[in-house]
Amino acid sequence: MGEYRTWGGRFEGSLDPMISRFTSSLPFDRRLVRADILGSIAHAMMLGRCGIIGEEEAEALVSGLWTLLEDVEEGRIVVEGAEDIHTFVEGVLRERLGDIAGKLHTARSRNDQVATDLRLYLREEIAAIVKLLLDLEETFLHMAEENFDVIVPGYTHLQRAQPVLLAHHLHAYVEMLNRDIDRLKDCYRRTNVLPLGSGALAGTSFPVDRELIKELLGFEGISANSMDAASDRDFVVEFLAAAALVMVHLSRWAEEVVAWSSQEFGFFRLDDRVCTGSSIMPQKKNPDAAELIRAKAGRVVGALSAMLMVLKGLPLSYHRDLQEDKEVLFDAVETLKACLEAARRVCEGITVDRARIEASLRGGYMTATEVADYLTRKGVPFRIAHEVVGRMVRYAEERGKELWELGLEEYREFSPLFEADVISLATPWGTVQSKRSPGGTAPSRVKEALQEAWRKVEKDRAWLASRPKIKLRSGI
Amino acid sequence: MGEYRTWGGRFEGSLDPMISRFTSSLPFDRRLVRADILGSIAHAMMLGRCGIIGEEEAEALVSGLWTLLEDVEEGRIVVEGAEDIHTFVEGVLRERLGDIAGKLHTARSRNDQVATDLRLYLREEIAAIVKLLLDLEETFLHMAEENFDVIVPGYTHLQRAQPVLLAHHLHAYVEMLNRDIDRLKDCYRRTNVLPLGSGALAGTSFPVDRELIKELLGFEGISANSMDAASDRDFVVEFLAAAALVMVHLSRWAEEVVAWSSQEFGFFRLDDRVCTGSSIMPQKKNPDAAELIRAKAGRVVGALSAMLMVLKGLPLSYHRDLQEDKEVLFDAVETLKACLEAARRVCEGITVDRARIEASLRGGYMTATEVADYLTRKGVPFRIAHEVVGRMVRYAEERGKELWELGLEEYREFSPLFEADVISLATPWGTVQSKRSPGGTAPSRVKEALQEAWRKVEKDRAWLASRPKIKLRSGI
Amino acid sequence: MGEYRTWGGRFEGSLDPMISRFTSSLPFDRRLVRADILGSIAHAMMLGRCGIIGEEEAEALVSGLWTLLEDVEEGRIVVEGAEDIHTFVEGVLRERLGDIAGKLHTARSRNDQVATDLRLYLREEIAAIVKLLLDLEETFLHMAEENFDVIVPGYTHLQRAQPVLLAHHLHAYVEMLNRDIDRLKDCYRRTNVLPLGSGALAGTSFPVDRELIKELLGFEGISANSMDAASDRDFVVEFLAAAALVMVHLSRWAEEVVAWSSQEFGFFRLDDRVCTGSSIMPQKKNPDAAELIRAKAGRVVGALSAMLMVLKGLPLSYHRDLQEDKEVLFDAVETLKACLEAARRVCEGITVDRARIEASLRGGYMTATEVADYLTRKGVPFRIAHEVVGRMVRYAEERGKELWELGLEEYREFSPLFEADVISLATPWGTVQSKRSPGGTAPSRVKEALQEAWRKVEKDRAWLASRPKIKLRSGI
Amino acid sequence: MGEYRTWGGRFEGSLDPMISRFTSSLPFDRRLVRADILGSIAHAMMLGRCGIIGEEEAEALVSGLWTLLEDVEEGRIVVEGAEDIHTFVEGVLRERLGDIAGKLHTARSRNDQVATDLRLYLREEIAAIVKLLLDLEETFLHMAEENFDVIVPGYTHLQRAQPVLLAHHLHAYVEMLNRDIDRLKDCYRRTNVLPLGSGALAGTSFPVDRELIKELLGFEGISANSMDAASDRDFVVEFLAAAALVMVHLSRWAEEVVAWSSQEFGFFRLDDRVCTGSSIMPQKKNPDAAELIRAKAGRVVGALSAMLMVLKGLPLSYHRDLQEDKEVLFDAVETLKACLEAARRVCEGITVDRARIEASLRGGYMTATEVADYLTRKGVPFRIAHEVVGRMVRYAEERGKELWELGLEEYREFSPLFEADVISLATPWGTVQSKRSPGGTAPSRVKEALQEAWRKVEKDRAWLASRPKIKLRSGI
Repeated sequence: MGEYRTWGGRFEGSLDPMISRFTSSLPFDRRLVRADILGSIAHAMMLGRCGIIGEEEAEALVSGLWTLLEDVEEGRIVVEGAEDIHTFVEGVLRERLGDIAGKLHTARSRNDQVATDLRLYLREEIAAIVKLLLDLEETFLHMAEENFDVIVPGYTHLQRAQPVLLAHHLHAYVEMLNRDIDRLKDCYRRTNVLPLGSGALAGTSFPVDRELIKELLGFEGISANSMDAASDRDFVVEFLAAAALVMVHLSRWAEEVVAWSSQEFGFFRLDDRVCTGSSIMPQKKNPDAAELIRAKAGRVVGALSAMLMVLKGLPLSYHRDLQEDKEVLFDAVETLKACLEAARRVCEGITVDRARIEASLRGGYMTATEVADYLTRKGVPFRIAHEVVGRMVRYAEERGKELWELGLEEYREFSPLFEADVISLATPWGTVQSKRSPGGTAPSRVKEALQEAWRKVEKDRAWLASRPKIKLRSGI
Repeated sequence: MGEYRTWGGRFEGSLDPMISRFTSSLPFDRRLVRADILGSIAHAMMLGRCGIIGEEEAEALVSGLWTLLEDVEEGRIVVEGAEDIHTFVEGVLRERLGDIAGKLHTARSRNDQVATDLRLYLREEIAAIVKLLLDLEETFLHMAEENFDVIVPGYTHLQRAQPVLLAHHLHAYVEMLNRDIDRLKDCYRRTNVLPLGSGALAGTSFPVDRELIKELLGFEGISANSMDAASDRDFVVEFLAAAALVMVHLSRWAEEVVAWSSQEFGFFRLDDRVCTGSSIMPQKKNPDAAELIRAKAGRVVGALSAMLMVLKGLPLSYHRDLQEDKEVLFDAVETLKACLEAARRVCEGITVDRARIEASLRGGYMTATEVADYLTRKGVPFRIAHEVVGRMVRYAEERGKELWELGLEEYREFSPLFEADVISLATPWGTVQSKRSPGGTAPSRVKEALQEAWRKVEKDRAWLASRPKIKLRSGI
Repeated sequence: MGEYRTWGGRFEGSLDPMISRFTSSLPFDRRLVRADILGSIAHAMMLGRCGIIGEEEAEALVSGLWTLLEDVEEGRIVVEGAEDIHTFVEGVLRERLGDIAGKLHTARSRNDQVATDLRLYLREEIAAIVKLLLDLEETFLHMAEENFDVIVPGYTHLQRAQPVLLAHHLHAYVEMLNRDIDRLKDCYRRTNVLPLGSGALAGTSFPVDRELIKELLGFEGISANSMDAASDRDFVVEFLAAAALVMVHLSRWAEEVVAWSSQEFGFFRLDDRVCTGSSIMPQKKNPDAAELIRAKAGRVVGALSAMLMVLKGLPLSYHRDLQEDKEVLFDAVETLKACLEAARRVCEGITVDRARIEASLRGGYMTATEVADYLTRKGVPFRIAHEVVGRMVRYAEERGKELWELGLEEYREFSPLFEADVISLATPWGTVQSKRSPGGTAPSRVKEALQEAWRKVEKDRAWLASRPKIKLRSGI
Repeated sequence: MGEYRTWGGRFEGSLDPMISRFTSSLPFDRRLVRADILGSIAHAMMLGRCGIIGEEEAEALVSGLWTLLEDVEEGRIVVEGAEDIHTFVEGVLRERLGDIAGKLHTARSRNDQVATDLRLYLREEIAAIVKLLLDLEETFLHMAEENFDVIVPGYTHLQRAQPVLLAHHLHAYVEMLNRDIDRLKDCYRRTNVLPLGSGALAGTSFPVDRELIKELLGFEGISANSMDAASDRDFVVEFLAAAALVMVHLSRWAEEVVAWSSQEFGFFRLDDRVCTGSSIMPQKKNPDAAELIRAKAGRVVGALSAMLMVLKGLPLSYHRDLQEDKEVLFDAVETLKACLEAARRVCEGITVDRARIEASLRGGYMTATEVADYLTRKGVPFRIAHEVVGRMVRYAEERGKELWELGLEEYREFSPLFEADVISLATPWGTVQSKRSPGGTAPSRVKEALQEAWRKVEKDRAWLASRPKIKLRSGI
């Protein structure tokens, strides 16, 4: 197919080839080919049903579009040689069906068409991402359950603070991913609104049935203002912001994987399947996948910044600036999907080194708060208890002992309120057991939390299954 | 009050004064004083009710806190002389109530406390911002109604494209603000979750009643994982992303105000109340407020970038890095509120210049699509109709005429399918009338859309009124 | 060639295929193939010259590398099937030369190798970008000279402020681009420093001659610390920041092109070669290329944000995170080059509409400052003169007149100090003539400025020509 | 002083109080008071010297301005009650000197005035920042010298890679700061250009002597285009980019301080003077200052994003949008200065734990590369040597031994080329000694590098001392 354009009646000169390449979007918007063809099928069905074009014309268009979709998806035709994906589709149709192809663009504009394509595309990608998030949640939950009896240092300021269950630690990430899913579901709802029928900016004078297209394509609502619909990319920004936050969560976890598999921490050993070596240092085993996940947060945040800057100060309605929505969106979608997939595999490639972890429970005086709380429960104002135990820590540190290795007499030197029961409380296990507040790290609480998390996974899988379907096959 | 710290038992040296200033948050977190005191009142009430401290101790603390709140709000005490707002509050209490003040910090940490303060603060600010958004929507709606008969050029690519109602144009902004409100409501829901009771990171061993605090403070849920709760700032990021998008919307509108009040457009005249002059050019009247609104979008986007970068790669759980959440959040909240307020006043200061607008309806051949659609309805494939009318535009342009000023014979030279009715359709009014698709610019459609917008305003005002209340005054 | 890796002695399992794809950089770092091979040739020459490998071995490697470079550049071999570009090159060599290929990696690591490749690549791209900037400057300078007698409104706040020469307006952009070139030259200097010889992070124990490699590859210095050299990407950030500023400058100009070619301004007509039409509105002629240039500023700023976020908090020395430098850099380089090229063509496609511009000199009272200055020169304090002329503007506005259309008597009603000479001063031409301060818009000043700009262009072209050359062909 | 404005002749209504607050810049641009007054003094001196105002008028203005500067700096007058700092200064002068004050604004505009103020301000701040960078470099250099014999693990991917001198590690940061200084000096050069004399946008018709003002204020050049000069904020962006990169460097170092003072690494102990404690965990000692330094990188990067977004798409020339340059710039300047100061103090508060560091040299097989290089030097292709040593590492790991603890026979089982000398080479000290390539970690190389760094410090201090001075006191 030669270069095909959908405009030009008023134009005398031809486009400068460099400018043609510069403005062409086909090299990237070809990713919308499926969305574009499905949207066109729905549009053609509606045009026929509303009598805007003949029934037979509509059937010819629909059938030609289905054939084209198969040809594209089975690689029988290459997507190239046009200004953009819309022009490509129409150009091939024209070659195959003749002038009738020109009727497909009745009552629509590329402005409402591309907005429809992008929403169709993103809607499906959000669903795919939610699925990947759920898979990753399950992996964390399995890891939590398999290591339920492992106590790790809980850190604040990267200093050992209080002992916690590893399962509790992992569940914190499940909570983050849960919020991510909720945000993406909200974004899905606002994305799944049909702009088609808005024309270039003002609506159309053809007697279109927008509700019908909505039903056919599985949208949940139609846009209420044509000027807004033609230039609204809020859903792209909202998605990128949600994606950036997912990536930030993954970066936090990846940072821990890198640290915990260092020789200094030694809590994790990474399987060879998820590490790479050094071209020069034979002893190295590098957590490359985790590092890349961490770094790629920057890329998605960059996409968000880019999109916000594109939109800043853009008057109504459609401007070619909006074409810049696509590459950042596509890159963010693919980056996020790859990182979620990679994170799951890295997680599966982790072996927990129980010996190293157990050794780490010594030396940080992580149960000191519990000892202070003990005094508080006996009536000592917390601030005073805090100071007393601060001095005990210094005392123990100087002797190279843990708090649970001090004798009761030593305890009593600091306060006569201490009784024998304080010592088992001062062990990591005693401390973990005691944190029974809702959301706390006591095993009973963590068990509850994991169960609740599984329930949430089921609920979100049900949401995925319940999304409105595309109903194009049910005939015209 | 001298410098007061809540820690130090183990510390031998005193803090370097420069580092003390560097790490102190009181200069900005004083903005949380109300939230901090209310949260402390609820906490003290709960401690008493659960028997963790004595009933009378609880009453003394609660009463001391109410007094302090009044003192602060009426300016009888200056918020200074401490490391942070939590320490300030406790320090004053200690001066006033003695050692009993030390009991207030039982079963909590500054980590869950500051997270609670920030959520209380932001929750109220989101509500205030939604209110300002609703006020601005109403202003747009009034302006739309008052100018319902005004037709303006609808632009794409800043080229005149198709005539639209000014009311339709304004309603596009109402739609944007509507989505903003919906996003902020979603953010409110995720913000309004209580972290208190999470301790420093692991929960607490005191028999706290987190549900009671939730009820007292009007939260809608409690956090499910203490490590996550102590280090989660997703709600800040989500708010900043929503705020950035509001600002982008305002920047788009501000750009138009600047352009439309230029001598070249001349559609708007700005009242002296919302303009400033030049120190050197006596004839100037500058749309400064609109320019500043546009520019301030950059600032809020910068805050969003900053916060995402702060969180990137931060392992669990609390790190002092999180202190950097506050200044960007406070600045974004205040910027957004000021811009919404300023936008409303600028909007009220606009006089629509109907003569200039009417003149602008000539010269852009904005009704050409309608003429092409006319042919399409007569059976001409759209692409061909498009080319025919492209040539007509060139023809009219060369003669300095509008499409509706050509005679029927001239029309017929381009296509014999034209009949007399095409000419009224080719006028701006004819074209606007014809765009009757849902969401289109036909007056009937715009009227419907405005009515729907008013209903949405009512619904959102009802949402504001229905938010759970703080119930601290109902006694212990 | 099968999948080839440069490590693995210690590894038992094989890499997960998904992780392999995820961590592979060949899909994008293939862009470094030329830099990688040239760097390897220099390295092999040095190894031979220093006796680290045999002279004949070195010759075999060098000759094999030249052949490979030709094969790649003439498309005889496809760059694929390896983990990264370094591995690809070495893998092919091994197939062709056998075990001797393994000697090429003596005394270097992929860490210093990739840093060298990237600096070689970027250095050449900076030079190419400076050349494009100079071409664009020349286009602006020609446009300025060809329209030297055209006076346009000078705007502040998008309000007509004072008349200026169009040439002066265009020269403002030349000044911006001049600063861009200076920044890029500074960046070039800091980029053109050789890291090779730093090993993985600690240096190497082979008796390498880093100065020799520097000379062979045209670097201007060698890095002073091996740990820094292996993990330094400052030059990438500095380039991205400079590129972002170029893009901001182009966005400002593009915004003006869009505005000035609107029907409202009408100062510019764009040639069909640089515009596109509408698929639905036959009358439209859209400044798409300018819009895209404007929007793409967001993309390059996004790349800058991304890179800064990648680097934040990364400890010494090399981390896989740094692999994320490449795609953002490549995209920014290509975006910037395309935009500079497109901007030049858009500029060449502009026709200045002198009639519309002349008409615009009426109505903004742009010469009012000059009239105020007139009074000031007669001894009236500027502030008072400013107020007097403010009243005169209101007077003239009410009568629909320009300041130069008022009679001397009318002038005298406002101040007896006015004499006949004020009236010619109050014309646009009189005002422009009078702004003779250095850097002002008086024709004599602008002529000087354009001459100086041409001199700067010559100087920068000379700089381009004087860059140190790659000297690999001069033999071993 | 009541509210004072410098414009208004044409205005009938008064400014809305909310809009007045919204547009007012005095709350932040008061920071420019010194720059504004010094600039005004130079301007007044020039006006007098050029005969634009009377000599005595000039003297009165100059003397009034010096008095005002003293009053402000000694706190005798509060900077408030005006729209901006320029208006404040002129308003006070008017109160004190009467109408003559109005002559000060002759031949200038607030547009060129504020650009001048900002450049004066930033120039001085850049110098202050360079000084702080030099102080920090010296602290690193002292730490390097005091611990010259300490070998630490050199990391890549946070895995122990090769042993390096701690001094070498620290010198890597000195190199980063050196590049920062160079970038800031380039930025200084481009900042130190005088815009005054550009008027509002077009230049001025008064016979001003811009070179004289340049000399009086210590500028190094004058701007060449008045439109550019009035709207150029490139110097702000360039500074923010340079500042962002300094902050990224500090964040990398801060991340290491946090990690190295964790219990897991234990390489550093932080002095109580630079740590804070926990309100709830008595044993905690948190590296808060380092964490905050790390986090504040986000803030400065946010400022950079904000400023770029403000400038995007802004047409010529001055727009009120540019007022948004100030708060981000002021915040970035102060953040950067505080972080540099804090970093120095944290660095001074570090005690190196030699025992923990020495222990860490075991277990990472960090000398493996050296053993592989040994084989390479005996003629084994590097790739094969790499694989052999990879197997040796696995062998040693299984036996819990270091490479230098294997016997020669064990070595020979892997390759007959090993001789007795390999074993000392396989120790950390042997490996460090061997890395003698320029920039490598061999003690002799590091010593050279430190000496060179000291020379660079001297050179940069000399640059600071040699900056052109303000020459206002030398009389009129």
